[in-house]
Amino acid sequence: MQLSASQRPSFRLSQDLRTGPANFLSGLRDDDSLLRQVFFSILRHHHPNLAAKVDVIYALSQAWCTSQSDNDFELMVKYVGDLKPEERILVASSFSHMLNLHNLTEEVNSSQIGRAVRLGEMDSPTRDTNHSLLKLTTVNGFTPQQVYDTLCSQTVELVLTAHPTQALRASLLKKYAIVRRELDTLHSKRMSEYEKIETLEAIRAAVQAAWRTDEIRRSKPTPQDEMRSGLSYFSTVIFDVVPVFHRRIDTALEKLGLPRLPLDRALFKFGSWMGGDRDGNPNVTAETTRDVVVLARLEAVNVYFRQVEGLMFDLSIWRCSPEMKELAERLAAAESRDAARVAEERKRRNYVDFWAPIPPTEPFRVVLAHMRDRLYNTRQVLHQCLIHSNMSVRGALEEAGAYVDIEDMARPLKLMYDSLMSTGDESVANARLLDLLRQIRTFGLCMMALDIRQESTRHTEVMDAVTTYLGLGSYASWDEPKRLAFLLGELQGKRPLMPPGMDMSPDVKEVVRTFRSLSELPGDSLGAYIISMAKTASDVLAVVLLQRETGVRPALRVVPLFETLDDLQNAPGTMTTLLGNDWYRGHINGVQECMIGYSDSGKDAGRLAAAWALYETQEKLVEVASGCGVRLVLFHGRGGTVGRGGGPTHMAIRSQPSGTINGHLRVTVQGEIIEQQFGEKEVCFRTLDLYTSAVLEAALDPPPAPAQEWRDLMSLLASESCDMYRSVVYRTPEFYDYFMQSTAASELGRLNIGSRPSSRKSGGIETLRAIPWIFAWTQQRLHLPVWLGIGEALEVAIDKGYGPVLQDMYANWPFFTSTLDLVEMVLAKADSRLSAFYERTLVDTALAPLGQRLRELLAKTQQNILIVVRKSVLLEGNTPSQMSTPNLDEKIRLRSPYVAPLNVLQALSLQGLRKFRDGGDVEYNPADPEIIDLLSRDPHKKGEGAQHPFVSAMDDCLMITIKGIAAGMQNTG
Amino acid sequence: MQLSASQRPSFRLSQDLRTGPANFLSGLRDDDSLLRQVFFSILRHHHPNLAAKVDVIYALSQAWCTSQSDNDFELMVKYVGDLKPEERILVASSFSHMLNLHNLTEEVNSSQIGRAVRLGEMDSPTRDTNHSLLKLTTVNGFTPQQVYDTLCSQTVELVLTAHPTQALRASLLKKYAIVRRELDTLHSKRMSEYEKIETLEAIRAAVQAAWRTDEIRRSKPTPQDEMRSGLSYFSTVIFDVVPVFHRRIDTALEKLGLPRLPLDRALFKFGSWMGGDRDGNPNVTAETTRDVVVLARLEAVNVYFRQVEGLMFDLSIWRCSPEMKELAERLAAAESRDAARVAEERKRRNYVDFWAPIPPTEPFRVVLAHMRDRLYNTRQVLHQCLIHSNMSVRGALEEAGAYVDIEDMARPLKLMYDSLMSTGDESVANARLLDLLRQIRTFGLCMMALDIRQESTRHTEVMDAVTTYLGLGSYASWDEPKRLAFLLGELQGKRPLMPPGMDMSPDVKEVVRTFRSLSELPGDSLGAYIISMAKTASDVLAVVLLQRETGVRPALRVVPLFETLDDLQNAPGTMTTLLGNDWYRGHINGVQECMIGYSDSGKDAGRLAAAWALYETQEKLVEVASGCGVRLVLFHGRGGTVGRGGGPTHMAIRSQPSGTINGHLRVTVQGEIIEQQFGEKEVCFRTLDLYTSAVLEAALDPPPAPAQEWRDLMSLLASESCDMYRSVVYRTPEFYDYFMQSTAASELGRLNIGSRPSSRKSGGIETLRAIPWIFAWTQQRLHLPVWLGIGEALEVAIDKGYGPVLQDMYANWPFFTSTLDLVEMVLAKADSRLSAFYERTLVDTALAPLGQRLRELLAKTQQNILIVVRKSVLLEGNTPSQMSTPNLDEKIRLRSPYVAPLNVLQALSLQGLRKFRDGGDVEYNPADPEIIDLLSRDPHKKGEGAQHPFVSAMDDCLMITIKGIAAGMQNTG
Repeated sequence: MQLSASQRPSFRLSQDLRTGPANFLSGLRDDDSLLRQVFFSILRHHHPNLAAKVDVIYALSQAWCTSQSDNDFELMVKYVGDLKPEERILVASSFSHMLNLHNLTEEVNSSQIGRAVRLGEMDSPTRDTNHSLLKLTTVNGFTPQQVYDTLCSQTVELVLTAHPTQALRASLLKKYAIVRRELDTLHSKRMSEYEKIETLEAIRAAVQAAWRTDEIRRSKPTPQDEMRSGLSYFSTVIFDVVPVFHRRIDTALEKLGLPRLPLDRALFKFGSWMGGDRDGNPNVTAETTRDVVVLARLEAVNVYFRQVEGLMFDLSIWRCSPEMKELAERLAAAESRDAARVAEERKRRNYVDFWAPIPPTEPFRVVLAHMRDRLYNTRQVLHQCLIHSNMSVRGALEEAGAYVDIEDMARPLKLMYDSLMSTGDESVANARLLDLLRQIRTFGLCMMALDIRQESTRHTEVMDAVTTYLGLGSYASWDEPKRLAFLLGELQGKRPLMPPGMDMSPDVKEVVRTFRSLSELPGDSLGAYIISMAKTASDVLAVVLLQRETGVRPALRVVPLFETLDDLQNAPGTMTTLLGNDWYRGHINGVQECMIGYSDSGKDAGRLAAAWALYETQEKLVEVASGCGVRLVLFHGRGGTVGRGGGPTHMAIRSQPSGTINGHLRVTVQGEIIEQQFGEKEVCFRTLDLYTSAVLEAALDPPPAPAQEWRDLMSLLASESCDMYRSVVYRTPEFYDYFMQSTAASELGRLNIGSRPSSRKSGGIETLRAIPWIFAWTQQRLHLPVWLGIGEALEVAIDKGYGPVLQDMYANWPFFTSTLDLVEMVLAKADSRLSAFYERTLVDTALAPLGQRLRELLAKTQQNILIVVRKSVLLEGNTPSQMSTPNLDEKIRLRSPYVAPLNVLQALSLQGLRKFRDGGDVEYNPADPEIIDLLSRDPHKKGEGAQHPFVSAMDDCLMITIKGIAAGMQNTG
Repeated sequence: MQLSASQRPSFRLSQDLRTGPANFLSGLRDDDSLLRQVFFSILRHHHPNLAAKVDVIYALSQAWCTSQSDNDFELMVKYVGDLKPEERILVASSFSHMLNLHNLTEEVNSSQIGRAVRLGEMDSPTRDTNHSLLKLTTVNGFTPQQVYDTLCSQTVELVLTAHPTQALRASLLKKYAIVRRELDTLHSKRMSEYEKIETLEAIRAAVQAAWRTDEIRRSKPTPQDEMRSGLSYFSTVIFDVVPVFHRRIDTALEKLGLPRLPLDRALFKFGSWMGGDRDGNPNVTAETTRDVVVLARLEAVNVYFRQVEGLMFDLSIWRCSPEMKELAERLAAAESRDAARVAEERKRRNYVDFWAPIPPTEPFRVVLAHMRDRLYNTRQVLHQCLIHSNMSVRGALEEAGAYVDIEDMARPLKLMYDSLMSTGDESVANARLLDLLRQIRTFGLCMMALDIRQESTRHTEVMDAVTTYLGLGSYASWDEPKRLAFLLGELQGKRPLMPPGMDMSPDVKEVVRTFRSLSELPGDSLGAYIISMAKTASDVLAVVLLQRETGVRPALRVVPLFETLDDLQNAPGTMTTLLGNDWYRGHINGVQECMIGYSDSGKDAGRLAAAWALYETQEKLVEVASGCGVRLVLFHGRGGTVGRGGGPTHMAIRSQPSGTINGHLRVTVQGEIIEQQFGEKEVCFRTLDLYTSAVLEAALDPPPAPAQEWRDLMSLLASESCDMYRSVVYRTPEFYDYFMQSTAASELGRLNIGSRPSSRKSGGIETLRAIPWIFAWTQQRLHLPVWLGIGEALEVAIDKGYGPVLQDMYANWPFFTSTLDLVEMVLAKADSRLSAFYERTLVDTALAPLGQRLRELLAKTQQNILIVVRKSVLLEGNTPSQMSTPNLDEKIRLRSPYVAPLNVLQALSLQGLRKFRDGGDVEYNPADPEIIDLLSRDPHKKGEGAQHPFVSAMDDCLMITIKGIAAGMQNTG
């Protein structure tokens, strides 16, 4: 053998040093192992033998993840296979918990980095507004004034939607939040020995409690449930962080010698779909919508009440401006006219303080006390509305002289602000009072605006019911031009269309009742009326007409949502018809909002074709709109994105065609993303920071438009991938069977995650909703919908010698960069060995060649992607878009030893369940009462609803693995 | 001149090094000057010229405080004298603010020390329980078990009383609390540059707002006001700190290998006089008492509601003990019987979460949800009681099935605890659930027990009205034996005494109504019935009888308060009569509580005689009680003590005669002491720590009993000082005039501080209440009531050659130590030069020799004290009792340059006011509107109530100086 001085291998120690000190330290230290130790010691304490098994499985899984060898894999499978049914549940649960604990160390770690950046201990891996401000002024050479004006004219509107895979139960979320908080304290606060002991005990208590909690949600959450947990993010986090964030912006502006943001500007607005989205879930009714509106307003009143009381303590100042004095005396005079009654009344309300009439020598308190009373009344009225569901909310509020218009609050507060500024009390003016002014601009009286979403066909049914009833024929059978003529005729006329007492089918009745209830709600609580599956201009006009007929004033802006590829491609045509109409342009006074979501289009044409169709559609829509002198607002329905955290927010925003954002971003925030982006004040602060800086830069430093040859090549890629995608999914007869056998798709229905059913009426792929379709493939680690067709498309292009062009597109076109990065990120999580295991365990051998083919397509896609992104392995030395989550491949690898056993357990559970259902009998009858308890935690399956213990064991195991894998993959459609 | 190497002067640098590093660093650093700079820059911003004047006055005052020379003093007086009336107000206000800011740097500094001690960075100057535990086990050689048993059998009961000189307005207190909090953050948290900027701006905003707030409270606070602010300490601080403190004790016990404190033990109980103390303030009526009881229960329900909801999130555990399971199923079954109504009802109550019926697979939540409903009902009922003042609280609570007995809450919680322990979930059991169990043991359903206090003569009037009405003669004219025979006769009989419809005078009526209203309040909300000015046994029996007649069940324990010296000295006789009676001993079943306060006795016999009488009385009372086989509980009414913080708590407790505390301490906490001891969580924690360790040590390591010759000498001192005190105060004819002329005593009445009038009916010293008497002398810096007579007594003793004995008593008798330390502390604050200035400005020259004499008496007292305590200057190298506030003399000296100008301003204001009242005309008519505003901030003096501008200027100035000096002296009687 020969000893040789080989070329200089990059020995890892010193290379690692290069990316900033914090990483070096924390990377090596390990919260991960602290939490794993805590968990194991709890497990050992309760189930010593099981702990040993989990240990071995983890070790075997780790060995396989590192060696990728066959026999390590088989060893692991054999070992897991030997587990008894009740052991499978607990093992699945163990890995699921370990995975969740691991995830939150990632979150703690990134908020450590956030803090380090803020304290200036390291330069920041992501963008924040402060950097953007500096970069834009120093690097791009904008004057501070230009940056200021852009900042003042931008808003980001975040629309919270409940999403079907809200995986973790609220109570588990709470416990992990405790662990996260205590862990963070361990890092950042100096503590005495006893405090440290108590912190570690608090961590142990939370982990223990989490372990003892039933992970599976046994009953379906109602929309109000979703709404409440959505609301709690506002009252506990967002409401307080928004002013802190504005204050930080002000400080940064001051450092640049710029004034504070104007008082009547808000950088953020918030919207919600929770309780307004009835697309495909029948139990969102008119009541539901009303309830959530009232609940949201109640929440707003509560937090304002708190702030006003705080201000009453702060503003005990006696000096004020003349206008302020005049107002205070007027109010004080009114009070003292019947002082006894006022004092009596305030006593009844047991205010914490200040219930004697306040003398006008404390003018601010006089005015604030008056505001407090009105807030109290507003709260009483809203309570009544909750109790008596037939009261008209708007009516009740106006009668009681409660707050309906936010300006009623803004005026006196503004008067106080000006008074303090005029008497030289700037620093008092800019304390809590300024915070409150920021809050009312951001949250108004409704906290967030509720969007209503309904499917276009439901309106067609209503119109059809009306026209047949009036004997005008059947609207449903009319062609588009006839519908348009009819609708426009009605809209430009004054005659009522809907006769009272017309009998309707329940579906039609429900739609009409919804419209009526909207007319009784305060306008500022409602956002847009979104038509899902919108195809034609008449779909829009029908809703405009229905709103007029039911007296919805002010009418909601009607937003068409183009979902399928066809609808997307005809969207420009549809909009030309719509915006070409003079009456309509007047009706919308020059602003039209469209929503584009790509979940459905992805399902029927594949991700690439969908993304490209989306991109082109946006451009065309912008053209069409500006052609008609209409400003187009694009509403982005962003899936809980592939990959971690907010990273691609920046990239996603940069990858929009330029001119589509220009200072106004409206975007959805999905289910578990809400917890990640708004779960903690620290994290929420960073989220607001990221969106602001992304939109600011998109406005001042937009990405360049793509060259023509890139577009042509992109179209080629889109059509190639689309054909390939459809030939596999829709034109391969045994594909559907393969899908239903190798995934948990059929069992997903019974997973009550989310309040809406998972498939429209039965039969083939096209009846499946986009989300379960993607979810099913994610679970079995092939992630087919994300990449299918892209490989071939790239190959066709490369064979035609477009290799270098593709590489150029990837390097310089943000849209193409982020599209491929997302795919690359998913491929890094795909695992064909595990997918093959599902096949081996669940699929008839007759279908095996199809599986074999799909995995080859995967491998080929991987190669072609690597060629284009010029890497030798996936995620190697991450690119700018993955920059935001430092060393991403590292994080994925840290997780996979936790996820692999869950996949194995899932495949085996599905196998067990299906064999049982096909009459296979398993004799599994545990006598041990503990095990019986474990198997009967589902209240709905007691008594005659009880199943065979094997079934409920496999059921639970299946549910747990589904959550665990979701937590491991942390992505959905 | 000759150069000489003189004897080695102790150069300060290295001596200073010796007392621990933290002190060295922080002593030198100066929050004081940071806050002073902030204040000055605000002052300069608003009144540049005034700021310059304040600067000069401060400089001159400092020069005088250091040089103590005449011409420096005259310079300062002249300069202050030249101020215009409106300038005096603002200058007074400036020094008052600077003084308050200075005070809070002392608080921040001591909580820095507290933290340093806890983090082990320095050894602690005060005692804390942890040290006591270690000291008792290692030094005094107690076994850990003994210490544990003692700890488990002790309780400390803290009774909060509103006190007349609650000097600062709540809103100013709040602002200073903000400054204190932000300053503390500056020290203990690492912050980025921006966070530091925002913290300093927050400090500036608070100081600015404080400066702009009118310091003078323009209207009298009602008892409910006092109650509310008392309550807010509970909900915001005490309620959360108590479990943290218990947890810390548990951790310390665990370290000694001892178990946790038993679940049903509480180391602390809380009581209150706010709204129950009707001694001398007529506007505490039956309503008031009822209101405060309801308010306190409301507060308790609110905080428990919060905890129960928190537990519902935590205890999502499905495994439990059989008993727990049985309970959960019973409740769940009851719920599901009419599930719809329950859900409906919970919706109405808009609980944050969990309003669907909870399945029994979450047993803890089922039980907790049930508790939450009952708490909600309890709250509703209490609201109703607040609104309808004629509802019987107890009745209403019982009818509605609300919580009346705390055991109804304790049982299910205990069941949960045992369940968790039995399933091996100790760490979950010992988390929030344990905290709640600690809280219900400490605060019960009433939060704190209300004491009722009434003067003995009022009951005599009632009895007199009854006996005359029944024609039995006039009770008021009977002698003691006849009263006793009558009362005991009635008490042992069954016949009702009070005929219905007997007409009464309003005073009698009010007393009877109070008793009746007590019968309708829940028993646990009431503490003791205290008879102030109690003199004879019949005073006690009269109340026992009146309670029976009005149906107060369970009867309140009747506690006599012996106030004057005579009452104190006959107290043992009185108690012998009382406890000698068999019936009575049965009635009290072997426990009798007595209260001893020394404020009044101090007024009529001087501090020393009062303290000694108190000491002896306690011993005799203990003897008498144990003679009758009765356990005596002594209730200490401790004045807001001389000197800072809790120091003497430890000393005060050690200085009680041994055997008077034995594990049970009941003590009052006065007005502004509440803010100091419970204003912050950190401070509150330390307060609980101090009391626990003091009582623990008093039990296990009591002070030795004093030798006989010490007692004889002490009696000699007491009688000598008493004669001298009385000869000056009561037998010097022109003393009263001197007092009324040289102090603000006559103007104090109009200072609406506190809800009770300051003097019983008019005429001489003996009509003055103790507090205004002491307060007046404190303001003019002679502090006469504290030291008068002590000097001569010591001199008589020293001349008889008892010098060494006195020194020995001081060194080894805690009682004598703390008595002299307190006097020394006051002497260190007395300033005869300033007192002489009051005389020069306000007193007729005819009375000057008396003043001259008083100051000589002061100087002589000072010398004799120094001889006994063996120091060359006051407060030199502080002794153990002053240990608790590190270098005290330093702190007093840091303050005096702020206080001196306030004294000068006060004397001049009094002079101005009196000259004006005696017809002297001053032509002062400011035309400047700003000044007019400044002078008309009192809403009650508008219109015809308006005074001459000079008067209201001097009035305000006087009020401000009174508060400022109080803050500077921080002591009362």
